[in-house]
Amino acid sequence: MTAGARARRTDFMLRENGLKRSAMTRQTQLLLTPGPLTTSPQTKEAMLEDWGSRDPAFIALTRSVRERIAAIAGGTGTHSCIPLQGSGTYGLEAAMGTFVPAVARVLILANGAYCHRIAAICRILGREVEIYETGEDTPPDPAEVARRLADDPALGHVVMVHCETTSGILNPLAEVASVAAAAGRSLIVDSMSAFGALPVDVAALPVDVLISSSNKCLEGVPGLAFVVASNAALSKAAGNAPSMALDLHAQWQGFEKSGEWRFTPPTQVLAALSAALDQFEAEGGVGGRGARYAENCRILIDGMRALGFRTYLDDGLQAPIIVTFHTPTDPAFDFPKFYDALQARGFTIYPGKLTKIDSFRIGCIGQVMPDDMRTAVAAVGEVIAEMGVRP
Amino acid sequence: MTAGARARRTDFMLRENGLKRSAMTRQTQLLLTPGPLTTSPQTKEAMLEDWGSRDPAFIALTRSVRERIAAIAGGTGTHSCIPLQGSGTYGLEAAMGTFVPAVARVLILANGAYCHRIAAICRILGREVEIYETGEDTPPDPAEVARRLADDPALGHVVMVHCETTSGILNPLAEVASVAAAAGRSLIVDSMSAFGALPVDVAALPVDVLISSSNKCLEGVPGLAFVVASNAALSKAAGNAPSMALDLHAQWQGFEKSGEWRFTPPTQVLAALSAALDQFEAEGGVGGRGARYAENCRILIDGMRALGFRTYLDDGLQAPIIVTFHTPTDPAFDFPKFYDALQARGFTIYPGKLTKIDSFRIGCIGQVMPDDMRTAVAAVGEVIAEMGVRP
Repeated sequence: MTAGARARRTDFMLRENGLKRSAMTRQTQLLLTPGPLTTSPQTKEAMLEDWGSRDPAFIALTRSVRERIAAIAGGTGTHSCIPLQGSGTYGLEAAMGTFVPAVARVLILANGAYCHRIAAICRILGREVEIYETGEDTPPDPAEVARRLADDPALGHVVMVHCETTSGILNPLAEVASVAAAAGRSLIVDSMSAFGALPVDVAALPVDVLISSSNKCLEGVPGLAFVVASNAALSKAAGNAPSMALDLHAQWQGFEKSGEWRFTPPTQVLAALSAALDQFEAEGGVGGRGARYAENCRILIDGMRALGFRTYLDDGLQAPIIVTFHTPTDPAFDFPKFYDALQARGFTIYPGKLTKIDSFRIGCIGQVMPDDMRTAVAAVGEVIAEMGVRP
Repeated sequence: MTAGARARRTDFMLRENGLKRSAMTRQTQLLLTPGPLTTSPQTKEAMLEDWGSRDPAFIALTRSVRERIAAIAGGTGTHSCIPLQGSGTYGLEAAMGTFVPAVARVLILANGAYCHRIAAICRILGREVEIYETGEDTPPDPAEVARRLADDPALGHVVMVHCETTSGILNPLAEVASVAAAAGRSLIVDSMSAFGALPVDVAALPVDVLISSSNKCLEGVPGLAFVVASNAALSKAAGNAPSMALDLHAQWQGFEKSGEWRFTPPTQVLAALSAALDQFEAEGGVGGRGARYAENCRILIDGMRALGFRTYLDDGLQAPIIVTFHTPTDPAFDFPKFYDALQARGFTIYPGKLTKIDSFRIGCIGQVMPDDMRTAVAAVGEVIAEMGVRP
């Protein structure tokens, strides 16, 4: 399906309260963001049913999703998948509270906003953190990680972000995993925006705890985080969490004992994730999905460079998830106008920007095909021509 | 729409992993549970779109839903609605953590599992609780509440459950609110299963904090809790929460500052809630919805009594939300068979039961029409005749 096929307009009724009074039309948008993403019609149509959350059919659906995600992570038999109501951040907070005991110290490898958010969570939960900061365009040096772990035996856990959505940088997961394992420390990986598109093998690397969410590269809708945790880490985690809702040990025990969720699950979101997993497997799993995203990313970068844009990251550091472009220096370029003009053409890019440099971001993930990306790049060309921006 | 119109069968593919291999058909079910509920086709169809969560259209949708829910609660101008990713329990934990300071003591009026869950949350969060327990079929006595508040000035907050889903009992909200106000204490109300069906006026009663969720009487799909809190309580709540994700003050500040969610919202769930609110208002708001549920409840109780079943609660204590029936003493009655036989006829009742007495529950809420309830009662009659249960 190309953007053309999506160019029907859907009616969208805005409410009276403080908003425009009349019915508006809103063009169906292709989302080129870090998520929520464009999902397939089949995924959305899976939400057209109501489920009793304690009914055996829903229990079976839950078990199936848990097993399939553990398998994608390479954790069948060694790890368990624990879905959690809420957003990815809920998964991160739950993981920090559940797997890091109150007395532990955590080494956080930081090169973007999401690592710093994890650090902020740890501080709120009373977990002591040490930050190894490398700047938004620089991956951590595994040798420095090894040095810090050797220097401080109290650092029981290493936390890293697989792909930092702040810049789109790919961090050296395998190298850090190797260093952490050699030092006998537990590795916790925020793979929010990479899981499903970049290969990971939690048993082999090893990774003790991996966190992601339904609405990233698995192409489900938002509403669920999930954590893939080693059974060894889980079995030691009882009573750590300073929360009832965000206690992953209790959530795991609930699933293991009855198959039921402790608290009302987002039934339609889980059904959509199950449908999305069908399509993920049909596309060839991580290999197929990652290859499509890599092609999207290549078309985007090549096309934008041909229009005169510059990427923030060197190509060797770029994950095929989201690309940061420097804002053109030509004063004719105006980001809000650029955003609106792309949206009028059916493309919603990410409205947020990096705090430290003048830039904008375009995502490569979701139900976006290479032809969509070509059309998007052509739209960018039209818009900057209209704005009078010179390459 | 009656049950007959819903009797089409939908294809339902169970996965291979540990489950049956082949495609199964699963009859579309009318859910007679405390939630997730049967929702309307319009509500589910509102999920057939993807939204950029930081896009102005989604910000407008969020603002509209917040204002409409505050208005339903009677809190326009005095209170703010704060939606929160997750289930209703997340809203309860967030409310306890945000509005009860770490040093405060809480009086919890307890006559069912949900009050005790709130007590357990308070203990995990380190908030000291005093329990006033009355048994599952007995509402709290407002005079006793007044006495306890007079005896202990450190009890800064009173917490009660509006309708206890454990039994279906309606608790005396207005009377307790009056006592709490007279004693100058803050009232926190879990109105999870009652909000939208039973009238509440948070400004007049007054109620400082009310918690409910998307998938109860507003008839949205599950995935969101919401809290309606007085602006006075909110303005004093900064820094209380021992959590990042479940900090309602920070969530409120996020909405007030940018209109955006701090963390990825369940976009489709919010769109469904917006569509559900359209239908709620078209039905006549709390008056119309409550009247339909009351009729469902009357048909259910009259019909079940005619079949020989006995209700657990006296009629005067029964909220029109969910009804608890004593399990028939005839040994021919077998609950799992009863559940399956009703499901084969298209009705999913609640599989959970009260811990203290032998009973089962049937819900009256959701997109269930009086004719559906008549059909459901007829199905119960068929099933017990088949089982050979004597009235």
